[in-house]
Amino acid sequence: MQIMIKSQRGNAVKIPYATIERIATYLRCMKHLQAQGVKIISSSELAQNTKTTPEQVRKDLSYFGKFGKTGEGYNVDKLAKKLERILRTKKEWKVCIIGAGSLGGALARYPGFKESGYCIVALFDNNPAKIGKKIGSAEIFDIKNFKEITEKTKIELAMLAVPQSSYEDVKEILENSKINGVINFIPHTLRLKTRRKIPVVNVDLAQKLYILSYLIKNK
Amino acid sequence: MQIMIKSQRGNAVKIPYATIERIATYLRCMKHLQAQGVKIISSSELAQNTKTTPEQVRKDLSYFGKFGKTGEGYNVDKLAKKLERILRTKKEWKVCIIGAGSLGGALARYPGFKESGYCIVALFDNNPAKIGKKIGSAEIFDIKNFKEITEKTKIELAMLAVPQSSYEDVKEILENSKINGVINFIPHTLRLKTRRKIPVVNVDLAQKLYILSYLIKNK
Repeated sequence: MQIMIKSQRGNAVKIPYATIERIATYLRCMKHLQAQGVKIISSSELAQNTKTTPEQVRKDLSYFGKFGKTGEGYNVDKLAKKLERILRTKKEWKVCIIGAGSLGGALARYPGFKESGYCIVALFDNNPAKIGKKIGSAEIFDIKNFKEITEKTKIELAMLAVPQSSYEDVKEILENSKINGVINFIPHTLRLKTRRKIPVVNVDLAQKLYILSYLIKNK
Repeated sequence: MQIMIKSQRGNAVKIPYATIERIATYLRCMKHLQAQGVKIISSSELAQNTKTTPEQVRKDLSYFGKFGKTGEGYNVDKLAKKLERILRTKKEWKVCIIGAGSLGGALARYPGFKESGYCIVALFDNNPAKIGKKIGSAEIFDIKNFKEITEKTKIELAMLAVPQSSYEDVKEILENSKINGVINFIPHTLRLKTRRKIPVVNVDLAQKLYILSYLIKNK
């Protein structure tokens, strides 16, 4: 997949999806460095921290303009700000989780989202025993009221954490909603059929174990 | 990061880390296609399913030999078997989870691991109220006995799901163990200092939200 953006000169430029993934990883790395008080990082250190090469770092960043001077390394605070501007349009996104089971509950409690500007404001489930309860500060609502509640509270992003058996039902609910983007944790690629484009990021946790086995085999 | 492997001719070949990530994604895609009864897939369909380009698919696979004939597409079963052989040395890996909190519990219940050949056989925690209980068929053990239990039951992989405050303690426990590989879910890059090399795959869930915001902004 490739993504079209306008370059600084106004031409359309194709950005590979893998570049966007790495840009997001660079930003998370900058956040960790900021927390540790690091001020300057070289492209080779950044590459080492994010499992890529210095050439790749420079190539990825070059899509979005000029970053730092040759030989001086990157100013961590400045690079973090620029990467944030590339990736996000706003300071805080409202997010909901569909499925208040073990995975949904774990996501609601995951500390990494809030510190990155993503606020979990609601969960949805079809289990009457769960509806009305809270996980952290987020209430669990009836999935029947998904459209109404997400529109009223201006929730833009949804994370999908239901069992695979609920896949088709939830797909329809999302297609009929005004949700702008979905992170899918069901180990099954999600494709939404809507007139308006709803970007989906599929997260496959088992893929990480495959990568690990490979690294062990070839270490 | 680049990984060295021996080519079929016996020369050392550098494989980019990103290629390994995509190979793992292709395998997960093959598993889904097998479940749906799909027999043949073209490189452009595979590329579309895994968010990359047909050229990239062909380049990634070319590191590992010949796959299919030009114009005929890939045989899903055969490609799945070959990819499995590339990524894994054995049919089943024994895996433990460190941290039996909400994330650890969700990982223990995640269906995608077992179907990919990764069997969660134990959890570890330091909370006396949790020790001795079970999640699914896996018992929760005292983290104090980590080395002894993982060696006795031949657990090779560990998933890290503890709060960030326990990071240093768990790091030491892993460094003193015989664990062969780690998946780290703490939003903080894990670096183990050991004489023997222990591969670590860091999983950052917030990175996925950054990618999603970008896709929404540029759709």
